[in-house]
Amino acid sequence: MRNILTTIRYDGRSYHGWQVQENADSVQARFQEALYRVIGEQPDIKGCSRTDAGVHANMYCVSFRTEHTIPADRLPLALNRFLPRSIAAVSAADVPEDFHARYSCRGKEYIYKILNSPVRDPFLDGYALHYWQRLDHNKMNEAAAHFLGCHDFTSFCTSDPHRKKGDFHRTVKNISVTRSGELVTVTIEADGFLYNMVRIIVGTLLYVSQGRIQPAEIPGIIDSLDRKKAGPTAPPEGLYLNRVFY
Amino acid sequence: MRNILTTIRYDGRSYHGWQVQENADSVQARFQEALYRVIGEQPDIKGCSRTDAGVHANMYCVSFRTEHTIPADRLPLALNRFLPRSIAAVSAADVPEDFHARYSCRGKEYIYKILNSPVRDPFLDGYALHYWQRLDHNKMNEAAAHFLGCHDFTSFCTSDPHRKKGDFHRTVKNISVTRSGELVTVTIEADGFLYNMVRIIVGTLLYVSQGRIQPAEIPGIIDSLDRKKAGPTAPPEGLYLNRVFY
Repeated sequence: MRNILTTIRYDGRSYHGWQVQENADSVQARFQEALYRVIGEQPDIKGCSRTDAGVHANMYCVSFRTEHTIPADRLPLALNRFLPRSIAAVSAADVPEDFHARYSCRGKEYIYKILNSPVRDPFLDGYALHYWQRLDHNKMNEAAAHFLGCHDFTSFCTSDPHRKKGDFHRTVKNISVTRSGELVTVTIEADGFLYNMVRIIVGTLLYVSQGRIQPAEIPGIIDSLDRKKAGPTAPPEGLYLNRVFY
Repeated sequence: MRNILTTIRYDGRSYHGWQVQENADSVQARFQEALYRVIGEQPDIKGCSRTDAGVHANMYCVSFRTEHTIPADRLPLALNRFLPRSIAAVSAADVPEDFHARYSCRGKEYIYKILNSPVRDPFLDGYALHYWQRLDHNKMNEAAAHFLGCHDFTSFCTSDPHRKKGDFHRTVKNISVTRSGELVTVTIEADGFLYNMVRIIVGTLLYVSQGRIQPAEIPGIIDSLDRKKAGPTAPPEGLYLNRVFY
């Protein structure tokens, strides 16, 4: 039995996230349909993570098992014939039998895009948070550095009855806030992410820029293990799963 | 009577170009509606050019006369409250009485974006031409240089019964083909453009990359004054009105 890892890219505006669900369109459902058209099978498909409605992916990884003999390097173009224009298969490769898109993942990088301008941009509608007030990206960066390392991120997690309670420790390996003209980008790499963790960190960094939270208060907010101490959950449209590490 | 110049930006995917027309949505119609909501008047609105269905504008200029007293610098935010998300007012200023968005224009710059990759990009769907075959942008650039200067561009113009026959001479001031990763961009600045001129020049440059036209043949194609000698009209989705000069 082959085990194939496929990398895709998608515009999340039209989807209620990756995961198949009733009464809502999902990236997984569209991928399964396209895969069935190509290999004539409906294997169990493993995605590297859940993503929320409206969240995008520059890189998202999917693994599945099949007996089909299509060469892996031909699979992306074959899938692209049947995928909607908002989803593109980018690459595919045979991987070891025990590989699993989610459980084999060693880390991920998310980016969050903010259009920091008094005027909105039609080309970034749904692709970046539009934020009018001038952002102090240096102060946000100073605050962001406190997230580095291994912490219990309970304060930066939306409780979700559908998710198993588990260990809330995660290790943030890189985090930065950069500005290029009117575009401010928050980049976070970690070994794993809790539900809404990036969006709550971004919402907290926006509070830092507003002066409602000081950079030096971040360690205390982390230690409090209290979601109410952190900032709000930033909207989904600025969020992109950017890289997945195995 | 005031005369006001407003700069807008729009995603052309949803519109049949700038100009108001029956049975089709246009940028002008949406702008007129928003302006009426702000100033309570329906002045005659002058656009800086026609644009075709699906063509975008990073910068498009509109002028109109009004007795309304709204300060020009407040007009963009007021318009943006009523414009659809695919159109944004960027700036506005009072201009001399004899200013006209179209007739006062000294030149324009268009860009044409080409995603040159075997894999399509969901985020560029409708925003760039997807072209699979590897483009030779150096060869395209060599051909492009022959367009510089003042020429009769009859070979690079779609005949349009609705447009007045006139002088087909235009002066190309700058033209370049650049590559940034998988994105190839054609940039053309001229004192004016004939109907479909940029798209036919781009289609001809694609033929050059394919080896169907040699760079040295461009002067002969220009001199022939024969539309059939040039390449095809490239699709609208890669085209952006980028700058307007007064």
